[in-house]
Amino acid sequence: MNRSELFEQIKKKQSFLCVGLDTDIQKIPAFLLDTSDPQFYFNQMIIDATAPYTVAYKPNLAFYESNGLDGWNSLEKTVHYLREKYPEIFLIADAKRGDIGNTSAMYARTFFETYNFDAVTIAPYMGEDSVKPFLGYPDKWVILLALTSNKGASDFQFMSDQSGEKLFEKVLRTSQKWGGDENMMYVVGATKAEELAGIREIVPEHFLLVPGVGAQGGSLSEVSKYGMNNHCGLLVNSSRAILYASSDLDFAEKAGQAALETQIEMKNLLREKGLI
Amino acid sequence: MNRSELFEQIKKKQSFLCVGLDTDIQKIPAFLLDTSDPQFYFNQMIIDATAPYTVAYKPNLAFYESNGLDGWNSLEKTVHYLREKYPEIFLIADAKRGDIGNTSAMYARTFFETYNFDAVTIAPYMGEDSVKPFLGYPDKWVILLALTSNKGASDFQFMSDQSGEKLFEKVLRTSQKWGGDENMMYVVGATKAEELAGIREIVPEHFLLVPGVGAQGGSLSEVSKYGMNNHCGLLVNSSRAILYASSDLDFAEKAGQAALETQIEMKNLLREKGLI
Repeated sequence: MNRSELFEQIKKKQSFLCVGLDTDIQKIPAFLLDTSDPQFYFNQMIIDATAPYTVAYKPNLAFYESNGLDGWNSLEKTVHYLREKYPEIFLIADAKRGDIGNTSAMYARTFFETYNFDAVTIAPYMGEDSVKPFLGYPDKWVILLALTSNKGASDFQFMSDQSGEKLFEKVLRTSQKWGGDENMMYVVGATKAEELAGIREIVPEHFLLVPGVGAQGGSLSEVSKYGMNNHCGLLVNSSRAILYASSDLDFAEKAGQAALETQIEMKNLLREKGLI
Repeated sequence: MNRSELFEQIKKKQSFLCVGLDTDIQKIPAFLLDTSDPQFYFNQMIIDATAPYTVAYKPNLAFYESNGLDGWNSLEKTVHYLREKYPEIFLIADAKRGDIGNTSAMYARTFFETYNFDAVTIAPYMGEDSVKPFLGYPDKWVILLALTSNKGASDFQFMSDQSGEKLFEKVLRTSQKWGGDENMMYVVGATKAEELAGIREIVPEHFLLVPGVGAQGGSLSEVSKYGMNNHCGLLVNSSRAILYASSDLDFAEKAGQAALETQIEMKNLLREKGLI
């Protein structure tokens, strides 16, 4: 999916919501554990309930890998289900991969060929040749970690060089030599909304994937205020607040309501910006 | 496996060789492609030929993931085979993972519980809470990326702060607050052998996993000169030079010879240091 198609979806659904499929076998409603594939059935019901309000899904690979072959099978079925029933939805592998060139080429094959995702999250530590192999696929995207939403972000990402440039700023600037706003997005944590203004000076046109709204404490209106550009330029992720809105039989209905509430807020923010 | 058990293995086998199982379906001998599981059979033959000279194996996850469920199945069989037949060998998941705390906890479960690896490689960009969940398992190890062997290492790892400390040095220093030399190792690329001296000043006791000897151009004697400590403290990885020593029927025999040649060199270096 290219950038203008993504923006069209955002305008059509009046939403820039990404639902993170961090599907934890220990948190899903107990009655699903009696089915043959609890992770997949949970995802299927969550997807059907939230898809009208959602432009992107982001399976978090760790939650599938940790169940071994069964988990990968659940992931494969989830991706297949999304591709068949909701082909207009943007699909992100939250994998945080990154390795030397020939290995990154293998990971690119995994996510873009074997699993047909639109995008994959990548860690920048190993530099250009760890990222480049993902950029050779038309209409596929790298989502590079810049400023993450977790506490540990402060350990290295704010390191300053002699000129005062911080590591996450260097990642934003340097990576623009590798790809452009048609094949690269950045992860920017919503717990640092005020920093979005500075980030937008470095990457005014790029899409930003913003985790940390909801369970991690960020505010949607703050994120929009500092981060929205004239083609929206934001995908805001919510995982736990939607997936686990209820742990009872009504979990999917409650997840749908939580997604709808977020979408209504997003519609208002898109209107304020004059984009719809 | 704990540190003294690992050192015992090194002394017993007179080797600190780690064989990287970067098993590329497009590079393995053609006759294996007619079998039901080419990746696994290739690994099995490579392992049997090289195990006498090897203290660690390091499957590179990308090469399995890229084949989808079949690949994960081959990986699972490889790990099971190693655990059954060679329980004394140290097993590293080369996965380069790292995510927010609850997600890293899932990855830790994947590699230490679901797959029973001894160690997993981790990228440091997201800081403490992305690493800590891996450190809660007795006798299991984090192998944190510090200075990698690829060209892109120069993009961010050498960034200097106002005091002149480089990012990879900050990773070495900061991470020592999270774990010690009994549960943490570091990836240090062999293409930068002279830098090992400075690294040894920061982490004198830790084991270092050194990729980049062989195909990536590092020298084993240089690595030992600057990096070996009084319990060896080195695992030197070789992948392509061993796996693809021959592409014919004799591939396993040639791999065994390549491993033996490396082991002989290692034996001499261990002797020079007075460790055996």
